[in-house]
Amino acid sequence: MDQLKALLKSAAGRYNKLLPHHDDAQQLVVYAHMKLAAETTYDYYGDFAGHPSVPYGVFAVRRVVSRPVRPDLYIADPDDFAAGYKRFGDNLRAGPESWSDAEIKLANDVVYTSVMAVACCYDVWQRGSRKTPGTVFEILMASLFQLMLPKAAFSKHIPLAALLGDESAAAEEQGAEEEASEDEGGPGSVSTDLVIKRSPVDKAGIVIPLKITTRERIVQPFAHQRILDSAFGAGAFRSLIVCISETQLDDEHQSVKQVCVPGTVKLFQKYLAPISGLYYCDIPQRYAAPDMQRVLPVQSVGHLFHDVARMLND
Amino acid sequence: MDQLKALLKSAAGRYNKLLPHHDDAQQLVVYAHMKLAAETTYDYYGDFAGHPSVPYGVFAVRRVVSRPVRPDLYIADPDDFAAGYKRFGDNLRAGPESWSDAEIKLANDVVYTSVMAVACCYDVWQRGSRKTPGTVFEILMASLFQLMLPKAAFSKHIPLAALLGDESAAAEEQGAEEEASEDEGGPGSVSTDLVIKRSPVDKAGIVIPLKITTRERIVQPFAHQRILDSAFGAGAFRSLIVCISETQLDDEHQSVKQVCVPGTVKLFQKYLAPISGLYYCDIPQRYAAPDMQRVLPVQSVGHLFHDVARMLND
Repeated sequence: MDQLKALLKSAAGRYNKLLPHHDDAQQLVVYAHMKLAAETTYDYYGDFAGHPSVPYGVFAVRRVVSRPVRPDLYIADPDDFAAGYKRFGDNLRAGPESWSDAEIKLANDVVYTSVMAVACCYDVWQRGSRKTPGTVFEILMASLFQLMLPKAAFSKHIPLAALLGDESAAAEEQGAEEEASEDEGGPGSVSTDLVIKRSPVDKAGIVIPLKITTRERIVQPFAHQRILDSAFGAGAFRSLIVCISETQLDDEHQSVKQVCVPGTVKLFQKYLAPISGLYYCDIPQRYAAPDMQRVLPVQSVGHLFHDVARMLND
Repeated sequence: MDQLKALLKSAAGRYNKLLPHHDDAQQLVVYAHMKLAAETTYDYYGDFAGHPSVPYGVFAVRRVVSRPVRPDLYIADPDDFAAGYKRFGDNLRAGPESWSDAEIKLANDVVYTSVMAVACCYDVWQRGSRKTPGTVFEILMASLFQLMLPKAAFSKHIPLAALLGDESAAAEEQGAEEEASEDEGGPGSVSTDLVIKRSPVDKAGIVIPLKITTRERIVQPFAHQRILDSAFGAGAFRSLIVCISETQLDDEHQSVKQVCVPGTVKLFQKYLAPISGLYYCDIPQRYAAPDMQRVLPVQSVGHLFHDVARMLND
């Protein structure tokens, strides 16, 4: 894991300074992917008992298993993955406006494979670092958007408190970011994730909360959206929630649960603040149902790039 | 711990059926208090380095120590505590309108001692049950309010989703409640804590979220207030957040941190939804500062009973 951690440190360093870091991110995920392929076994674990049922695998080192992985999305062959990553990068540079269905699926699967490769490395070799996969997700997505939108202005977070002129709250956000051992971002975290604007002085933009297994934290992006609406007027900032891997292993039944809270999401969407879109690499089956789609469209991460490009040109 | 668990089960059983359970709750906390006094050592641990500094102690069984406890609030002598609990109960029955400062402090300290006694038993003898102290806090406070307001209508939760007619969300709330192993209430939890109304058919009332060490979950009561304001009109439901023990042991420096997020609370109060009051048995020093008091009054739990009685008679 030393090599993986060194690559992560390098990518994180450039990301934290808001420098382009696409090459670093690519090296990191390709390395993690190769390491998994070389040093773990990959086996079928069990199904999500949906309609149709969805098979999941796990990476294993002796008895330690990773989180569940979907073989229809995970690009298992290292050469295929490296080539796919490169092609996806070229597609991003060319712009997502005219992507075919195959290119949309490629984008989705490369993101899924990248994040899951690193997350599964941590699952089997470094259980304690629960927060790291989420950080990698953030670094990766920022690198991809920078590649696609070289002229846009990126920031890691909207420090809501600082923006609103409250110094004590700004200090709490800072403290929360430094508390790397806290899984949930610390008590005072009121920063959003990735923010993209047309230019640094723009008072409007797209907020992209990135979540791996949200659990009760799904309330956060809706609460942040409400604060942004209150402070800057409705619609100035729009949130697109991007998620991966909303699953739990069920050891007793050797099956996989897709963790879903469609009713909660509908409730927040209606009474807290409306989010502009919900994106999953691995859309939970329940979220594809019409009742959910009517309230809040749920699409693949392959569609996200197109939507971001379009919204920024609105 | 078997006897303690049996007492808890009995109190919880009556509470879950919304039956009066003051005697059960009292037996539970008095037993926990005696057990701690008899079977642990209580020692000075360290200070919170404030102005002035605040000393904390811990209960210990060999090398296992409890969460930090404030000796100025914890009624250590078992006879004093049992007598104080009884006197406090009598004061509640008589009504809190004319309580003296001493009676307000007695109320605060009895609640603090009760909750901390049970929490510390779980800290030293049953580490795994992280959720239990919070449940006891809820059972205890419900029993005290029932004693004070025998004619009021109590409910354990406002099931927001069910109230709003969303069946899938209601099912998620149910599921979240059953996931007792989840510390944070499960992914789909959109229920508030204790609710008090003048009568069962009333479409307005007081919502009392009860929290032991809130961490990032402090956003929840503000988000719930916002949803209630959106759904029922501003002011129909008012939230009073009640907290205990917002502290962390700092083993390295043998000191205690008071976990405080005044800026975050101010931000939520201003831009998410206004809460009607914040109450602590052990008010973090930072929350007593004027900048905080201007935005959201922070008072002792001794004052809570009076405020609830007044609001219900408004």
